[in-house]
Amino acid sequence: MTDLLTPVLRQLESNDGDALARYIDFLRIPSVSTDPAFAGDIKHAAEWLQTELSALGFAVEIRPTPNHPVVIAKDHAAGPSTPHLLYYAHYDVQPADPLELWDSPPFEPVIVEAENGPRVVARGAVDDKGQLRTVVEAMRAWKQVHGKLPVRVTLLFEGEEEIGSKNLRPFLKTYKDELQADVAVITDTNSWNVKTPAITTSLRGLLYTELKVRAANRDLHSGLYGGSAANPIHVLSELLGKLHDEHGAVGIPGFYDSIEPVDEATRAAWEKLNFDEGAYLRDIGLEHSAGERNRPALERLWARPTCDVNGIWSGYTGIGAKTVIPSEAHAKISFRLVPGQEPDKIADLFRAFLEKELPDYVQWELDIHSSARGFRLNTTSSYLQAAKRALSKVFQTDAVLIGGAGSIPVVEWLKVELGLDSVMLGFGLDDDKIHSPNEKFELVCFRNGMKSQAAFLAELVK
Amino acid sequence: MTDLLTPVLRQLESNDGDALARYIDFLRIPSVSTDPAFAGDIKHAAEWLQTELSALGFAVEIRPTPNHPVVIAKDHAAGPSTPHLLYYAHYDVQPADPLELWDSPPFEPVIVEAENGPRVVARGAVDDKGQLRTVVEAMRAWKQVHGKLPVRVTLLFEGEEEIGSKNLRPFLKTYKDELQADVAVITDTNSWNVKTPAITTSLRGLLYTELKVRAANRDLHSGLYGGSAANPIHVLSELLGKLHDEHGAVGIPGFYDSIEPVDEATRAAWEKLNFDEGAYLRDIGLEHSAGERNRPALERLWARPTCDVNGIWSGYTGIGAKTVIPSEAHAKISFRLVPGQEPDKIADLFRAFLEKELPDYVQWELDIHSSARGFRLNTTSSYLQAAKRALSKVFQTDAVLIGGAGSIPVVEWLKVELGLDSVMLGFGLDDDKIHSPNEKFELVCFRNGMKSQAAFLAELVK
Repeated sequence: MTDLLTPVLRQLESNDGDALARYIDFLRIPSVSTDPAFAGDIKHAAEWLQTELSALGFAVEIRPTPNHPVVIAKDHAAGPSTPHLLYYAHYDVQPADPLELWDSPPFEPVIVEAENGPRVVARGAVDDKGQLRTVVEAMRAWKQVHGKLPVRVTLLFEGEEEIGSKNLRPFLKTYKDELQADVAVITDTNSWNVKTPAITTSLRGLLYTELKVRAANRDLHSGLYGGSAANPIHVLSELLGKLHDEHGAVGIPGFYDSIEPVDEATRAAWEKLNFDEGAYLRDIGLEHSAGERNRPALERLWARPTCDVNGIWSGYTGIGAKTVIPSEAHAKISFRLVPGQEPDKIADLFRAFLEKELPDYVQWELDIHSSARGFRLNTTSSYLQAAKRALSKVFQTDAVLIGGAGSIPVVEWLKVELGLDSVMLGFGLDDDKIHSPNEKFELVCFRNGMKSQAAFLAELVK
Repeated sequence: MTDLLTPVLRQLESNDGDALARYIDFLRIPSVSTDPAFAGDIKHAAEWLQTELSALGFAVEIRPTPNHPVVIAKDHAAGPSTPHLLYYAHYDVQPADPLELWDSPPFEPVIVEAENGPRVVARGAVDDKGQLRTVVEAMRAWKQVHGKLPVRVTLLFEGEEEIGSKNLRPFLKTYKDELQADVAVITDTNSWNVKTPAITTSLRGLLYTELKVRAANRDLHSGLYGGSAANPIHVLSELLGKLHDEHGAVGIPGFYDSIEPVDEATRAAWEKLNFDEGAYLRDIGLEHSAGERNRPALERLWARPTCDVNGIWSGYTGIGAKTVIPSEAHAKISFRLVPGQEPDKIADLFRAFLEKELPDYVQWELDIHSSARGFRLNTTSSYLQAAKRALSKVFQTDAVLIGGAGSIPVVEWLKVELGLDSVMLGFGLDDDKIHSPNEKFELVCFRNGMKSQAAFLAELVK
């Protein structure tokens, strides 16, 4: 069979500068989805994609949702006998704060030399704008070289991933017929390390909540009321202190009851990866694991549920002193879930825990921001095997199958709503600082990503 | 003896509208001391006082400190045979946040009708600008009627009370000779209720600290690190949960060891006040006391030390969701102290508690913002008795002697540095919402305050 891939890879190499320029241009748009102040930038990012993809010959539409729009782009020119791939990525990003910890402005990308060569530093450098670019640039090169893609492609780029993808599931329901395909390709995951490509075959789910505890009907002077009035910070702190027991396990009764255990083969494969948790923690300035005691690190990260308080605020938080007993205290509390745990059931258990543990002299409210199940993928599918071959070819080393510690709820919804299995093809690294100041993407990862996406298309028509 | 007072009281009544206009004008200056953004307004407030007091015939100077200046105004025309009074009040105010809970802008005073007649609503309405106005207006009326004051007066108005008066003690040391007087008069306390005047004869001290707990060297993604990385919110929460035991007592070992007990006579006098803690708490929307169990309410508020967390912040606190494990968590933690407790010793006990309770995998720092001892005043002094007579005359009911729950560190410093006893002559009410949104001062309290200050001067020269 003709070698369709080599000229595409050559094209990617000769177009590298232009691809980088487009990538940087895209990063300049502060498409922060959680804060309504950036709604115009979200719209701008969607239109930017529409302009580019239309010029590449895709039929593009910006489809509204109750919040941020979805970009749908189709190129089915390869014809009905070819596989049909539904690509998923997201064009929204996390907020950039705390701004003062960035070495350069988060939406003014810079290229910095580091131990793996040059890297791009910006909010969204990898999550998920950089990953999204690997898909588009691979298709651009295929079209430049061969005039068309070798398979049918539908691109679905959403703008609400960082806020829980609330409108995506209804969107998939609404456009169920139109979005039928043979397989989904998700580009939002990591390599095992800079030299070793990986396919993620399991992901944790997420339940993200916000708790408000209210005591007095107004802020009080701590001198006049201290010793009599309840302080909601004390109440909230005491509660949060009970979220974990002395062995690092989540202290909510029933939390672990329905977990599906990891099978022995997977456990053995993970052990073979020789994960060095000490080095992983030293990189972030920590010496000890704070997770569940007596569990292997990769099991804790990939197959055990967790609870983290992601934010807390109450009272006076400015410079200097204010002697206030606040009226309210707030916390954002989230749970990473694993297969077997139903998010709604976990929310009920959490509510029962609050009911039991919070004293009756405070009022409280619990809001659910988002929820998604954890899941494991079928590792024997031909698409997954094709992806594995493509990665191994580009990286020139065998791709490994790993678990993912984060959550990508769309994978579950694609399965339930459209009946689609997913292949998770991503190129980030653990130290990319996603959601943190100085988020980065190694250019070597970006380049291998573009090539791997191109190679995957070639593997499908061999 | 001639009735010097009646025409002064009449003058205050006929000048009431002008006094109110000056008071409101003064409240319009946002003299927030804790936030450097308001430094210009602090200066403006000091200059506003200088202009007024100079016009009234005082010799006025704005004396700089390393932070906000002190206004010193002298009128010693009454001559060396008369008593010399050193008045203390403060012209700085608390921050106004949370702004959204104010019914009207905090620095645009409004007059609102309520159950006790009209009241002024603004930040500083009572604490301490409204109280300060009672002193100045009483002296203005004396001068208008009699051409001069009946006693020698030095006014000391500071601009850092709400941030712990850090520079005031060195200031008193520096100007020790110049500030010699017979007694100090502090105007920053409350009546027992709107009809019953009170003199405060004890105050609690204050130790105000700020704690920072640091885990990882940067913010982390909770999906990638949850189950492995330490979360400083968890660590801080667990610690704060240990600050109080299950009986509402402070859990720091040694915290109560050196407390001087209240004598039986005082305890009996407090019991006679028939304080209704239930009503006091219902007014702020609470049903139960959260203080030390099995102690009378007034003892808890006036003679027992407390600990309150006044602020807490960490991680993502904006709208929506961010799945972050933060690097740092912060809390402002303060202690109300009583006689016998040395602030430095309590700080040491707190540090030892942190050392013992915080796990070794986090780093922490404790800053001390301010500290002051609690104390009790001599209740038999002739000045205090004169004040009691003046209050009883104006309010037409006996003044009571009460404890104060808050802290006014200057009282201790005046004693130690200048050898001066203080008389605490104040006109606030417990429900004035000082340090809270919608701070107010009843006009009836403001008017009785001006008259009482005038009557006090008359009592001294009888």
